[in-house]
Amino acid sequence: MEFLVRTENLLPVDTPAATRDELKAGERARAVELREAGILKRLWRVPGRNATVGLYEAEDPAALHDALASLPMFPWMDVTVEALATHPQER
Amino acid sequence: MEFLVRTENLLPVDTPAATRDELKAGERARAVELREAGILKRLWRVPGRNATVGLYEAEDPAALHDALASLPMFPWMDVTVEALATHPQER
Amino acid sequence: MEFLVRTENLLPVDTPAATRDELKAGERARAVELREAGILKRLWRVPGRNATVGLYEAEDPAALHDALASLPMFPWMDVTVEALATHPQER
Amino acid sequence: MEFLVRTENLLPVDTPAATRDELKAGERARAVELREAGILKRLWRVPGRNATVGLYEAEDPAALHDALASLPMFPWMDVTVEALATHPQER
Amino acid sequence: MEFLVRTENLLPVDTPAATRDELKAGERARAVELREAGILKRLWRVPGRNATVGLYEAEDPAALHDALASLPMFPWMDVTVEALATHPQER
Amino acid sequence: MEFLVRTENLLPVDTPAATRDELKAGERARAVELREAGILKRLWRVPGRNATVGLYEAEDPAALHDALASLPMFPWMDVTVEALATHPQER
Amino acid sequence: MEFLVRTENLLPVDTPAATRDELKAGERARAVELREAGILKRLWRVPGRNATVGLYEAEDPAALHDALASLPMFPWMDVTVEALATHPQER
Amino acid sequence: MEFLVRTENLLPVDTPAATRDELKAGERARAVELREAGILKRLWRVPGRNATVGLYEAEDPAALHDALASLPMFPWMDVTVEALATHPQER
Amino acid sequence: MEFLVRTENLLPVDTPAATRDELKAGERARAVELREAGILKRLWRVPGRNATVGLYEAEDPAALHDALASLPMFPWMDVTVEALATHPQER
Amino acid sequence: MEFLVRTENLLPVDTPAATRDELKAGERARAVELREAGILKRLWRVPGRNATVGLYEAEDPAALHDALASLPMFPWMDVTVEALATHPQER
Repeated sequence: MEFLVRTENLLPVDTPAATRDELKAGERARAVELREAGILKRLWRVPGRNATVGLYEAEDPAALHDALASLPMFPWMDVTVEALATHPQER
Repeated sequence: MEFLVRTENLLPVDTPAATRDELKAGERARAVELREAGILKRLWRVPGRNATVGLYEAEDPAALHDALASLPMFPWMDVTVEALATHPQER
Repeated sequence: MEFLVRTENLLPVDTPAATRDELKAGERARAVELREAGILKRLWRVPGRNATVGLYEAEDPAALHDALASLPMFPWMDVTVEALATHPQER
Repeated sequence: MEFLVRTENLLPVDTPAATRDELKAGERARAVELREAGILKRLWRVPGRNATVGLYEAEDPAALHDALASLPMFPWMDVTVEALATHPQER
Repeated sequence: MEFLVRTENLLPVDTPAATRDELKAGERARAVELREAGILKRLWRVPGRNATVGLYEAEDPAALHDALASLPMFPWMDVTVEALATHPQER
Repeated sequence: MEFLVRTENLLPVDTPAATRDELKAGERARAVELREAGILKRLWRVPGRNATVGLYEAEDPAALHDALASLPMFPWMDVTVEALATHPQER
Repeated sequence: MEFLVRTENLLPVDTPAATRDELKAGERARAVELREAGILKRLWRVPGRNATVGLYEAEDPAALHDALASLPMFPWMDVTVEALATHPQER
Repeated sequence: MEFLVRTENLLPVDTPAATRDELKAGERARAVELREAGILKRLWRVPGRNATVGLYEAEDPAALHDALASLPMFPWMDVTVEALATHPQER
Repeated sequence: MEFLVRTENLLPVDTPAATRDELKAGERARAVELREAGILKRLWRVPGRNATVGLYEAEDPAALHDALASLPMFPWMDVTVEALATHPQER
Repeated sequence: MEFLVRTENLLPVDTPAATRDELKAGERARAVELREAGILKRLWRVPGRNATVGLYEAEDPAALHDALASLPMFPWMDVTVEALATHPQER
């Protein structure tokens, strides 16, 4: 099933650049893995914000949670999840 | 997977009693069927309101939608759905 | 550019079935055209509601508006549009 | 009577791992006790968040408060409680 | 247990005066009964509105719902209920 | 006149226990004085929160403010006040 | 004591002009009386809306309610009241 | 001074086409006049909605209100106004 | 033109008393000047909060901003401004 | 295409004056560049706040994001973006 996932990244502004870079690199690497696993299907940036909208596919909400929690930035992210139903037009 | 479902019944106050009774009877009968099918697991009333909180189980959001839309009162109900993840304590 | 579009269908409950069916058929036909034109890329149902989340692509907000306004149900739809930015991971 | 209880865990990200682990272990142990006492009946995770939805049973709101306040994480939790009425279908 | 109950009276402005007067009289009579039964303990008006704040006592939320639903104006009232816990200072 | 007063206590979690205990003791002592002065008439706890709902009586909003500001916890409390009108049923 | 009072006038657009004019004239006449009685001290229009912000003085919320309810437009007005405290700078 | 003005057009869907066309023509004609008077400086459509964002210039809020109220669609428009201050960069 | 101005004072609780007293004295002195200049016309306290509602008069929003920004507490204040239109009854 | 952009500047009050001045100077310099590039078309201050409303033009949301993120104050700014459609009156 598919989920619409919004994230706001709340990493403090005064985080050392090295820590920030390391987190960003890890985030990008893990995202690539989630894409290859078919879990992360699309990702957009909310313009003007350190925030994203993503389209995810997972077996159920618990599997989605595990995928999101595997992202290195997860402890600093405010995440909201919306479960979407297949539309009859796409069945 | 399990869903928390809130409903507000917006049937107009001036609906004829006969129509209302028929809808209520149909609603109750369909709810019994959903319980027997294991889809409707618990139902509570929000005190003071013509509103409910329900715990549903369905294969996915589309199956849940079909179950909710099968209720005779559905056209007058404002429904919000929240997909819940199994908690590690209950795995 | 891509847009996330939410719609709530507010067609009155007491709309005659014939009118409703005609509108639905027209809506579906127009949606097919928008898909074929590459404007409507994905469509989901919000479970429990007569509502959708859609992913659209259009040259600019005015072109998107024209596409949405071409849907037969548009006069009864409450629509909100969010412009999304390409994420660096997908550039 | 039954209550729907939402919690958001606001423990700071920079809490030392040892403190965090100790709190989590204590939380889990206390939750087991509340389950055995028939107070905590179901617990779900809100996907994507360090948050839960729980179904509790207690004699009254004061007894529920005491149960929630006995959780080691309570000082860091933002909790909202909703008292539910038995639905006529379940009487 | 005690509940804080808010009501907004949504009776249409164009309700005939006779109907309105009859409803008001019935409302007042039923309120007197609820006071005598110890269920309605205090009632205030929200200044500027056709709205009230009330302090009720009932065995549980279902009993409170039945009391509120027994008011003749109930079908036109938007009601919200908050369950209150005894404060340690008043135990 | 009577006021409905809501408080949320925002005292930081890491406040030393001695400071916290002293504040709590002072709070309770001052509350007793406000009760004896007929200003604090009832106090409830919002279940699950470090929050209260109170029924106060004071000559006017300025007198109420002075009473609330005399509580030792006041600097850490988020307070909202609602002025209530006597209901015709209670005149 | 002084109150800040907001009103939104919800008189239906299709109200006959004669009814509307009569209500407006009565509203203005009653407002003059409330000014002369020292109850209505200032009145502003919210630009772009059929809405006002007013500064009222009344003995208590019940007296304010009676003054507001004496306005001919009252049945169509959505009113919110905020009780203000004298500021120490103006004592 | 400049104002940001948002409008939502709430003209009922079932308004006869002739009435609607007449109102639209009048609206457009009056908007041209407001542009020529230097009051309406820019106008945008909110994509997906029968709504606009406009940049207006008027001597004060009362003059802006009169300009907005002169639009034929005004009785059906929900309007919100925000007064903007000149930014130091543009002084 | 007149403005309704709300302020919430967010000065941290742990600000040294000397700093706080100095700020308060400066605030009061500057407020007196703004009153004498005819800019600050009325000031109320929001009961239970470190917050005010004020009635200001200034040539335009930029002049109002400068007046507000001249208050020593301004860097800690959360301020919202509403431009009011003269009401026809007061013209 | 044009965007309405709101910013709230959350730079901490206790930021050293030198840092603040340097950021402000950089912000102003970068804003001049964005104006010269035709990206920043208008800028207003929200009266009473360290906040702005801006009218921007950019090829798409990603280009707008890059422009906003190039401002030295960006890490401390809370930004919301609204994509506007050309209004038929201005085509």
